[in-house]
Amino acid sequence: MTAPAPVADTLDLAAVRTAVDRTLENFLADKLKTAEADEMVDVIGVLDRFLRAGGKRLRPLLCVCGWHAARGGPGLEVVLRAAAALELFHAFALIHDDVMDGSDTRRGHPSAHRALQAVRDGSDAKAAEWFGISSAILLGDLALIWSDELLTGAPMTAGQHLAVRPVLDVMRSEVMQGQYLDLLATGTVTGDLQQAMAVVRYKTAKYTVERPLHVGAVLAGGSPADLAVCSAYALPIGEAFQLRDDLLGVFGDPRETGKSDLDDLREGKRTPLVAMAVQRADERQLAVLRGGLGRPDLDEEDAAAIRGVLEATGARQRAEEMITQRYTAALQALEQSEFPPAVTAALKDIARAATVRSS
Amino acid sequence: MTAPAPVADTLDLAAVRTAVDRTLENFLADKLKTAEADEMVDVIGVLDRFLRAGGKRLRPLLCVCGWHAARGGPGLEVVLRAAAALELFHAFALIHDDVMDGSDTRRGHPSAHRALQAVRDGSDAKAAEWFGISSAILLGDLALIWSDELLTGAPMTAGQHLAVRPVLDVMRSEVMQGQYLDLLATGTVTGDLQQAMAVVRYKTAKYTVERPLHVGAVLAGGSPADLAVCSAYALPIGEAFQLRDDLLGVFGDPRETGKSDLDDLREGKRTPLVAMAVQRADERQLAVLRGGLGRPDLDEEDAAAIRGVLEATGARQRAEEMITQRYTAALQALEQSEFPPAVTAALKDIARAATVRSS
Repeated sequence: MTAPAPVADTLDLAAVRTAVDRTLENFLADKLKTAEADEMVDVIGVLDRFLRAGGKRLRPLLCVCGWHAARGGPGLEVVLRAAAALELFHAFALIHDDVMDGSDTRRGHPSAHRALQAVRDGSDAKAAEWFGISSAILLGDLALIWSDELLTGAPMTAGQHLAVRPVLDVMRSEVMQGQYLDLLATGTVTGDLQQAMAVVRYKTAKYTVERPLHVGAVLAGGSPADLAVCSAYALPIGEAFQLRDDLLGVFGDPRETGKSDLDDLREGKRTPLVAMAVQRADERQLAVLRGGLGRPDLDEEDAAAIRGVLEATGARQRAEEMITQRYTAALQALEQSEFPPAVTAALKDIARAATVRSS
Repeated sequence: MTAPAPVADTLDLAAVRTAVDRTLENFLADKLKTAEADEMVDVIGVLDRFLRAGGKRLRPLLCVCGWHAARGGPGLEVVLRAAAALELFHAFALIHDDVMDGSDTRRGHPSAHRALQAVRDGSDAKAAEWFGISSAILLGDLALIWSDELLTGAPMTAGQHLAVRPVLDVMRSEVMQGQYLDLLATGTVTGDLQQAMAVVRYKTAKYTVERPLHVGAVLAGGSPADLAVCSAYALPIGEAFQLRDDLLGVFGDPRETGKSDLDDLREGKRTPLVAMAVQRADERQLAVLRGGLGRPDLDEEDAAAIRGVLEATGARQRAEEMITQRYTAALQALEQSEFPPAVTAALKDIARAATVRSS
């Protein structure tokens, strides 16, 4: 732990969110002004709307928490830019993810590749669809490149730069590898819970919770011990977050989640929830899962049958229990930490919001 | 111009190429060793083979030339890493480009998305195809992320870091914007030569020639005057390189170019060559161009008819003249430069290889 620095009694997460959003808005406004060609305005506009459409800003908030956890003092400007860069990186990941999954909606709006299709309205449907996909690949690439630019443009010290790069490098490789494992597994319906949990760990627990905390912590000069405590909180909360996400993907209310409750089923997403159902399913139940999951034309009736199997096998209940266990473990890690009380309180709030939610 | 530093009498481009390739191979070998999951070996292997399959290494060579042009002395290690990073960035751009264009081959081998399809062999064809596309999107993302890691892991001074970042930021935004303009124009057959040349400028002239030279030059502490001379050489050579590429795409020998001579026509690539043909075509010729370009099922006979129009309208001849003019302008810029003679000689060789070539 570095020498204590003053930390406010409470950590105002809403104010952090506003500051991060302002950083993003200013960055994109500047990109719009300096675009090489008028035609880019459409594309940058789609990214701008994507970022404004919502999202929990979990990674930026955790990044700022990591900074305060490691007793970061003045120089919040750098952390806010790093936090905003994490959000822009996440926009890249989601835009490409939606292309790969063929998801039509995101955050209650058309996904980027669907929104970009409109630029080509009037040409034939197939060409417009491919244009949407191609330009969303490019837009994702731009978001990734710009996330880097946002970070490296921050007024970091040489020490901060040296400390933060390896964390970001590892984070970015991890999430890509998690995405690939996910892709590889999608479409096969198996009871391999361990493999499903490996994807959760790389794709979510490390990427969404652990690494953002680490980014903030190392910018504040955090010690290996600080990072270890961050991990002890982050990994269970990250797993719980994803388990909740998977439950909401199947049982959630689309009006609250902003995405269809058929997408995950149609995509044949291989979640721990499904793996646990397969483990306990009888032959008839297995046939329902194998016959429905991953079918692009799966309808409401098929979905209802699958939901029935997830309930009847106890998989849904078991997922809820796993969330509770992990939530409890994360809170214990916080109790044992020597983080400033304001940070502990904020991390508790985030843990609760990540695991007990309807959107 | 910075204070003169010793430069060898000749700049051994073949040795530079070998050194850059070794840097890339070591970097990827390390990635294979530290992969989070065994499954990643397939994916990283595709990238490794993609890089080993050839390519002109134009950007790395130009980067090293830029370094020597600005009288870079010891510390070549940093430049070689930057040069290798440019090549890895280019792999990213090509992998995504091939996905967007639906190109089946690259450098005489299956393109990345076709190679990755094999991982899913055995499942149905449509699913395997989409798996190939999705995993190539991820592989491109990884190449982009790793190009950054390769560069930032170089033992740069703080001054070098500050100097090189803005050049890279601009380069990466420019090429993405060029790609988007290209995408937007693809499929429409028009005589807008200015627009076609704008794409050439962003997508090739700046990205392939100007910025790599600038990267090397700023790493050596090059002055704005050095950069201006680099640009005076780079922009015409870059344009000539792309004009040659477009001619080879239509009139080249696939055994030499490593890619089908139907791809560009099927894709409906809006090149200056096509724009000039449209400008001079009569009604019958226009019908041949509009009826064939961009048709995914275009066959050898259609291709021959289009080639006939490109010849008869004088567009092919005009493109050759534009190449010669630009080649001459680039050589004049070199004559007027105060670059070390070894650098001038190497840049002349590159200019020749880029414009007078059959592959």
